[in-house]
Parts: sequence; structure tokens; C-alpha cells
Amino acid sequence: MSHILRGAAVVGQSGGPTAAINASLAGVIEACILHADVIPKVYGMRNGIEGFLEERLTCLNPLFTKEDGLPDTDGALKMLINTPASALGSCRKKLPKPADDPGFYENLLSLFKKYDIRYFFYIGGNDSMDTVAKLTEYLRTTDYEMRVMGVPKTIDNDLMGTDHTPGFGSAAKYIATEMQEIVRDCAVYTVKAVTIVEIMGRDAGWLTASAALPNLVNGEGPDYVYLPEVPFDMDAFFGDVARAFERHPNVVIAVSEGARFADGHYVGEGTQSGAVDVFGHKYLEGTAKTLENAVKEKFGCKVRSIELNLPQRCASHLASATDLSESFLCGEEAVGAAVDGLSGKMIAMKRAENPAYRFGYDIRYATKDIASIANAVRTVPREWIVPENNNVTDECLRWILPLIQGEAEPVWRDGLPVHFVIK
Amino acid sequence: MSHILRGAAVVGQSGGPTAAINASLAGVIEACILHADVIPKVYGMRNGIEGFLEERLTCLNPLFTKEDGLPDTDGALKMLINTPASALGSCRKKLPKPADDPGFYENLLSLFKKYDIRYFFYIGGNDSMDTVAKLTEYLRTTDYEMRVMGVPKTIDNDLMGTDHTPGFGSAAKYIATEMQEIVRDCAVYTVKAVTIVEIMGRDAGWLTASAALPNLVNGEGPDYVYLPEVPFDMDAFFGDVARAFERHPNVVIAVSEGARFADGHYVGEGTQSGAVDVFGHKYLEGTAKTLENAVKEKFGCKVRSIELNLPQRCASHLASATDLSESFLCGEEAVGAAVDGLSGKMIAMKRAENPAYRFGYDIRYATKDIASIANAVRTVPREWIVPENNNVTDECLRWILPLIQGEAEPVWRDGLPVHFVIK
Repeated sequence: MSHILRGAAVVGQSGGPTAAINASLAGVIEACILHADVIPKVYGMRNGIEGFLEERLTCLNPLFTKEDGLPDTDGALKMLINTPASALGSCRKKLPKPADDPGFYENLLSLFKKYDIRYFFYIGGNDSMDTVAKLTEYLRTTDYEMRVMGVPKTIDNDLMGTDHTPGFGSAAKYIATEMQEIVRDCAVYTVKAVTIVEIMGRDAGWLTASAALPNLVNGEGPDYVYLPEVPFDMDAFFGDVARAFERHPNVVIAVSEGARFADGHYVGEGTQSGAVDVFGHKYLEGTAKTLENAVKEKFGCKVRSIELNLPQRCASHLASATDLSESFLCGEEAVGAAVDGLSGKMIAMKRAENPAYRFGYDIRYATKDIASIANAVRTVPREWIVPENNNVTDECLRWILPLIQGEAEPVWRDGLPVHFVIK
Repeated sequence: MSHILRGAAVVGQSGGPTAAINASLAGVIEACILHADVIPKVYGMRNGIEGFLEERLTCLNPLFTKEDGLPDTDGALKMLINTPASALGSCRKKLPKPADDPGFYENLLSLFKKYDIRYFFYIGGNDSMDTVAKLTEYLRTTDYEMRVMGVPKTIDNDLMGTDHTPGFGSAAKYIATEMQEIVRDCAVYTVKAVTIVEIMGRDAGWLTASAALPNLVNGEGPDYVYLPEVPFDMDAFFGDVARAFERHPNVVIAVSEGARFADGHYVGEGTQSGAVDVFGHKYLEGTAKTLENAVKEKFGCKVRSIELNLPQRCASHLASATDLSESFLCGEEAVGAAVDGLSGKMIAMKRAENPAYRFGYDIRYATKDIASIANAVRTVPREWIVPENNNVTDECLRWILPLIQGEAEPVWRDGLPVHFVIK
């Protein structure tokens, strides 16, 4: 254990929303309040590092502390845990390299000093860990002591260095549940029909794989799932559909938004805008729509495409209790590790085997060097995709299954979930 | 009370799936089992009247009766109630007029006689009530005594003669909850953006109106909702968006798939296929997509369109407990009324005021003459839409609110809801 560093903390959220990112925020807040002797104040930066630069800070202690000084675990924090999307707002700012723009970092440093900020917690995905890494790199060149910790978050489950990412389990549970419901819906008619469901995940197929979970649990899932990790072949796809029609009239398919042909072109490229986001990612749309048109032409049957769209990442009402609990603990662990003296790390989860638990599943928390995390993408292993490239193995599904266990228990008022909105 | 009519019952489901149509089926089954002295057998017709003509019948008693002869209320029936879509399958067959095709009806009659069917229960929407009406009309010309009852069902809430329709409350609860979650998701960035959510309901705006429920409950709903009952005006719409941008950067809009211009053309007509279903309804797609392109061109800002799609009608995991309970009772009432001697009727709900209940809301069950129901559409009253045609009144929302109260409690196994599949 390092020396005790007294000062304020600031916490921010960055990147796309998830159903669990506020659970991690709640974990950071609760741990800061419990460490009030070391961390007298925890600020929330509004809209991530962008808002911080504009000094848009909200002191969070009054919102989440009871009169006795303890965290309001069963009140405001519980509501926050069950609120989707980033309660502090988000940003997609890519930080310059410290060597390229020292003025940018000097500006940041003056604000850290102004608010006596000694702890910096950033909850986000790959791009956010890049922010944490650059800030850590810069701080090494100064004599200002501040401890910087990353808390992982992404529905895509594509971060390196952690068994899985907070937010993934809830998205997977939503997708699996909706797929099962859609399969039931599609089963009611006897007319031949193909339903194609498009699922998020540009480069990693973890979410698309989750669509097949009902097959493992009760045999009532989609006929095929197509991941971005392996090439998509239109003729093989038509063959798959034809074979499914031999089994039943209602064919249901899940496809990743990032599915692409062997030549690297996205399946949905025909109908995409060609735009890229600030990180250079191609903005996609219409993979399922493209396949809908292809199947319609080939088979002449009824075809329909469905994009599960935003609810995949914000359906807090159907969050995984396991995911929310792990996300909260990741936030808590980040504060604990920083108070203990660590910096420049990301909290990681390690899967441990414990026969006493459900599916023998247990999680230990650890820290990973941030430089080893940023900007690398973890995909579904080749051996977890069947040789025909049209499904995942049971081993893959058994790996995902523990992450969707348990149902969130939001507070309901007048028939709707209660969200905690930080004004 | 009429004389006692002994014989078998048959129950079918028709039209589009809902999250509550199996609750009505469960109500019919439970009541038949409880009336086993009069109704010794209840058959399920697979895929509605179409399957009945092919004698695809399943005797339901063994699946839902306990060893002691009582209905398996806490087991199979509970699972069935929480299963989305028509467990017996559905069809979209439009019956000929009895005078036009007497052979068709003689065929039906011979099957009623073959199975000694004396009770006919049909769960469905407008088109299904048309089936019930025609069958009733035909039976009057024969000396075969069979009692025919319609049980209403449709997420669209567009049936005449009943306060509201079973299935609507669950769809409304899903839509309102997702809208609230989408509003939270959209609020995280500071960049100007418009999100347009397309909602089911070709001619009636009840579901689109439900998107505004979060505004009533907690002020966190969409900026505007556009119903099919009033003309859509593109310039007025642009004005609405511009005014919303003065309040906040993230504009969220709900629009009916059936929104149309003053000249009667659908907003989504530009991108629609032009196909019609067997009832002559125009098949629509792309209302939100059309508006997305229009807003992009006009404002040059980030725009995104979302179709809530099938989950609106099959998200059993988020069904309204009020809706499931009412749907079940409608099924039970149909059996009770038929045993009491009624025929050619639809079960209807009447709203009663009872200060002892939540929101003072209470429901009484009644029967309506089937001929007065079929083929008429009930829309949102003009006075419940604001003069600017871009929202609904609080009075409208207060009318819908009781119908989304309470949360379904599906059985969960291994992280997914358990559905009852009739093999």
C-alpha cells in the first residue's frame, strides 16, 4: 500500500450508453462516500472530458448521501443503478497525443489543481481507455500526483484484458429474450417467411452470438446466427435458408451489423451512408435490410427485417442482475485500488471456477495495465464458431450464459420504471 | 338462463400476435375445465379457422388439468399466460359471405357435428370478429345449435364496443418504457440530434399516444407524437423540431406508421412496397425513415430512425399485469356467457369508476352484439389530440395510464422467460 493521498475525485462516463454504466458510476460514488476521510468530495464531470474542460462539474455527494453520512444505497443509488445510459452524459472526444498538444494537457492540469482533484475515474470502452492511457502518460511528465483509473464498459464485450465487460450481460439478456419472443411471434403463421434480425457489434460478434442463447436453454432460438468474425457468403446463406425451410415454414436469422464478405466489404454497404465517426469507424446501416431484399428476390417469400436498435443498449428494465452487480463492483474496486495507491490501470474481471455457485461461475476483480488494453479488440474465438460459419458452439453459449442470470429489479411508479436523472 | 347445452368446445386465435392473447386462451381453457360437466372437452384449433378446416385439433384438457381434475392454474396456465403470440397459431383467412359460398359453411358444419362441438370461441381483432359474425349468421339458417363467442384482442385498441382491447395495455407499457429508455439514451450527447421512433397502428393512434405516457408520469418522454387521426404537415413538423432544438439538443419524436398527409397519402409511401394484405390493408414501411431523410436534409444534423417493430406486440417479459388479468377474464367470461346461453356476442369491457381502486379505475364485463362490432375502427377522439396536431392531451394519457399498471411475472429459467409451447 502506497501513502495516503487526500483530495477530491472526479468521475466521468464516455462512449455509447449501456444499461449498466450507471451501476459502475454508483459503485464509484458509493466507494468515494465510504472513503470520505480520504476523498472528501466526488465530482461528476458532465459529458466526459469535454464537459470537464468547460468546468461543468456537479458535486455528487449531496445527491447520494444520507443524513448520517452514509451512502443512500437503497434510495438514490438503487435508482441510479437501474437507470439506463450515462447519467452524467457522455462524449466521443479523442484526446491528442501528449507530445502533439501539450497546451491541451496543461489546461487539464490547471483544472485538476483548481479543484484539488487527486482521483480520476473514467468509465468507458476502448476509446475511453485510450483517454485514460494518454492522461496517465502525460501525468508521468509532471510532478502533480493524481491517480487515474479506468472502469470498463461496453455492450460489445470487445475489450482486452478482462473476462467480459460490464454492460455486455444486460445487452445479451435483452437480445436473447427478444429473440425468443420474436421466434414465438414468427411461429404463428403457416406461410413461408424469413425474419432477419440485425444485432449491434461492428467487429465483435458477442452480441450476435447471444441471440442463440435460447437454443441452449430451451431450443426455441433462431435458425442461424452470422458473426462479423467470419466471412459472409451469400450462396451459403441461401443454402442455409433453404435447409431451414425443410424443417419449418418460419425461418428466423440473427445477423451482426458488421457482417462482411470475404473481400472485406460490409453486407450492409449497399445501403450505408459511408460516413465515419470521429474515431474513423464506418457508420453502418441496413445489413438486415440488404439480406431482406436478397432473400425476397431469391425465394419470393415473405421476408421482414428487424433492427433491435438502441433498446439493445438501454433496456434497463430487462438488465441482468449479474451484470449490474458486477458493474457496480468494478466501480467500487476502482476507488479501492486508487486509494491503495494504484494508477494507470483498468479494473478487470477474471473468471474463476466455484462449484458452489450457479454454473460454477465466479468472478475475481483485478487491475490491468491500461497501456495493454487500449485500442485492441477482442473477438469471438474461431473455434466457438461452427465450421459452416452460420452458428456458434454450445461451448460459446455456455460461456455467455452465466452473464445473463438474474433479473434487474427497477423501482416502478405508475407502471413505468423510475430513472434517476442528475439535473 | 337458457337450457343446458352439453358438448365439446373449440377455441382458436386469429390475426396478429399480442403479449396477452394467450392470457385470453388460458381464461377460456380454465373456464372450460371448470365447466367439465357441460363441456367435457376443449379442443384448440391450430392456425385458426384454417387449421380447423384441416381438422388440426389438439385436445387441451390433458395439458392444463391437474390429476385432481382442476385446472393447473399455477403451472401450465401461468406459463401460457406469460407466453407471447398465439400459442395455437394464427391465420388471416377472410371467410366468404354465407350466401356466396354455402359449401364452405356446410363443410364447417359437418366438422362441428363430427366432433360434437357446441361451443366456438374465437380470440382476435376486427377481422376475427368478422369471422364470428359470419359464422353466427350462417348458423341461424341451420338447426344445429352451437354457441359462438368472440374474445377481443388487438394491440391497436381499435375495436368498437369495448372500453379498450386486451393486448393494448401490454403494448402500451412496452412502448412507454422503451420510449423513456430511448429518451435517456439520446440525452447523453450534447450534439444536436433528432431521433424518430416509428410505432405500430395503421389507422388508430392509441399506441403512438402511449409513447407520451412518460411525459405524464415523470416528464421524461418524447417531444412530440404524431397520430394517424390528424393530417401530417411537413412544414409544421419542421417548425416543431426547430422549437424543440430551442429547448434541448436531443429531440425525440414518436410517429405512427400510419401517419399521412392531408391528401391522404402515407408519409412512408415513398419507401413502401405498395403491397396489400388479404384484407386489402396497405402494407407500410419506412415512415420514420422518410422523416429521417427529410430532417437530415432540412437541418443537416444527426438523425436516426428506430422502428420498435415486432417487440411491441410480443414483449411478454414486460406485459402489463392489468392487461394480462383482464385478458384472462375476457376468456373466462366468454365461456360463462356461452354456458349461460348467449351466442353471437363479443365480450366487452366497460370502464367503471371505483374510488377504492388505483386511479379510481375498475372494469365490468359485458357482451356486445357481434354484428355491431365487426369492421368498424375506433380511433383516438379529436379532442384528445392537441390543436397543433403534434401531441395528445393529459386527459388522453390519464385514460391510458391505468391499463399499463403492474408488471407481468413470467417464470424465469437460466436467465430467460419460460414460454409454454403447445407441440
